[in-house]
Amino acid sequence: MTHEEARRQFPVLEHTAYLNAGTNGPLAQSTADAVIEATERDVRDGRSGKRYVERVLELRATARQGFADVLRVDATQVALVDSTTRGCATVLGGFGLTGEDEVITTDHEHFGLTGPLFATGARVVMTDGDEDAILRAVTPRTRLIATSHILWTTGRRLDVHRLRRESGLPVLVDGAQSAGAISVDIGELDFYTVSAQKWLCSPEPAGALYVRDPELVRIKIPTYFSQESYELTGAFVPKATSVRFDGGWVGIPALSGIVAALATHPEWRYERGAEMAARCAELLAPHVEVVTPPGHSTLVSFRPPGDPEQLVASLHERGVVVREIPKRGVVRASCGWWTNEDDVQRLVAGLAG
Amino acid sequence: MTHEEARRQFPVLEHTAYLNAGTNGPLAQSTADAVIEATERDVRDGRSGKRYVERVLELRATARQGFADVLRVDATQVALVDSTTRGCATVLGGFGLTGEDEVITTDHEHFGLTGPLFATGARVVMTDGDEDAILRAVTPRTRLIATSHILWTTGRRLDVHRLRRESGLPVLVDGAQSAGAISVDIGELDFYTVSAQKWLCSPEPAGALYVRDPELVRIKIPTYFSQESYELTGAFVPKATSVRFDGGWVGIPALSGIVAALATHPEWRYERGAEMAARCAELLAPHVEVVTPPGHSTLVSFRPPGDPEQLVASLHERGVVVREIPKRGVVRASCGWWTNEDDVQRLVAGLAG
Repeated sequence: MTHEEARRQFPVLEHTAYLNAGTNGPLAQSTADAVIEATERDVRDGRSGKRYVERVLELRATARQGFADVLRVDATQVALVDSTTRGCATVLGGFGLTGEDEVITTDHEHFGLTGPLFATGARVVMTDGDEDAILRAVTPRTRLIATSHILWTTGRRLDVHRLRRESGLPVLVDGAQSAGAISVDIGELDFYTVSAQKWLCSPEPAGALYVRDPELVRIKIPTYFSQESYELTGAFVPKATSVRFDGGWVGIPALSGIVAALATHPEWRYERGAEMAARCAELLAPHVEVVTPPGHSTLVSFRPPGDPEQLVASLHERGVVVREIPKRGVVRASCGWWTNEDDVQRLVAGLAG
Repeated sequence: MTHEEARRQFPVLEHTAYLNAGTNGPLAQSTADAVIEATERDVRDGRSGKRYVERVLELRATARQGFADVLRVDATQVALVDSTTRGCATVLGGFGLTGEDEVITTDHEHFGLTGPLFATGARVVMTDGDEDAILRAVTPRTRLIATSHILWTTGRRLDVHRLRRESGLPVLVDGAQSAGAISVDIGELDFYTVSAQKWLCSPEPAGALYVRDPELVRIKIPTYFSQESYELTGAFVPKATSVRFDGGWVGIPALSGIVAALATHPEWRYERGAEMAARCAELLAPHVEVVTPPGHSTLVSFRPPGDPEQLVASLHERGVVVREIPKRGVVRASCGWWTNEDDVQRLVAGLAG
């Protein structure tokens, strides 16, 4: 697949410098076609019967394998969840945390991680978004480190493997800004949750949760897919693998869209995404303060001279889609393997207002 | 809207006696069209920007009002959740139950209720699916009654208001088989959760949760929609109303489908559904043991002379869609306001095999 062929999958790119995969990636026509075809079939044939249920289960298995391929892990270690919020809630809620326990997180996390963390009642220890700061915060009461792989604010990448290795603690990684954007190596990590609608370009909501060993977490939000067998009291034998953490039912249209989206990427996706982010930063640097450290991610956060919100709105009017990061005073451009020189040139041209 | 006009919304009914709304209702062409149009717009325009987010919030408000209308409650008391499983988990998980507490449920509940109940660690007290049995099981340790409004197995309707009144306890009602099927009166109930993909004919997954007073339940699975404001630690001020129990992000295509589906029903839906269920039971009675008590619901469960699974399969081959209820030895037909005489005649004719 050439750069142009890869790009042509996404109709929005024909007219828009779409630089906001960090919220939602572009949707391929083939992904939409899969959703539409499945929707039409559901209308025509109904949503019932043995074949229908088999098709749901086949699509779940295919989607699961697709996420496993992205993370380069075994599919039995992957649960289908609708969001990183749900992935975080599944791990944090099931980790048996009490008010005596400490969990370390950074001051650059999304509410999808910190909200469920706060809900556990554990003591939240907040540090800078920096490996040294996190490791210094470890005490005998620390039970978990919960952090993003790539900070959604600044685009900085944390060395989560170092955190795991040097702390000896389990690490829950929010991979919302990493899966599909950078090559992810799970290594010794215990928990890693990803969004599908960003660099994996799926319909939303969709995502996945990697759990190395299912016995590390209790099932606090069981669904029909959690159980191998159950009694009428609700007592159940969980599935043997991390599939037990699956969220609930997903319809065939959405599953078809996820499966189609997971097949849109070219082999060179990570190299190209990194290249375009570097190019974007290079072009921005003479005009604004680029906040994202070089080589860290496919995000390019920068501090504009004026009001970030106004800049985002004026860029949007010119067909350049980026976003503001609230309370940080920065604007964030997200590059992807589909981004081209024209997109980033349009961003820079739009800075002039 | 005449019976025929109401029915013509659903293409599957042209060829199939679709009697399984208890799993998934039929989808209207207008619902599919809304999903498809929104999908095409997302592909063309991207999924980002102020207008996009506003559209999501507007559709959430419209869907919420639609569910509130079904339940005849205020929209501020309704949370959007993706399933009754999530609705039950939200209430049960946030109710502060310990191993000392007892929760009464029946032996006719779906795992979507009993699974989350079991996960709380509370003592599950299981009774017959009968108001007297439930009320007899109340002890000083009982903190909650959790039961279906209509039992998904037998179609029996429980007098949930009597349970509330005579026990004085909070009652969590699983309304999966009631919302859109029968006229629901919330009355003094505290918690009521519904599915949208059944008699409300929406794309799946979709549903809602009624919580009378948001202070009755802690937020254990927070989402971005739970908070009014939050700190970087995740500490947050919840929204003032039961909207705080909203599940996560739903895309515009799914929201558009839900909103369209909630507009497909005729005014006479409850009368017609009840009438067709009565007619179905009347036609079945000479041939099989009808299990559902008359006038209880739009379900008609019956005990066939032979193997239920085989009967369901052979009916399916003849274009008659019903389902088996596992471990109960019964087959369940679901009627709706779209059901006609021909549908139920085909079911009866199909019994002959």
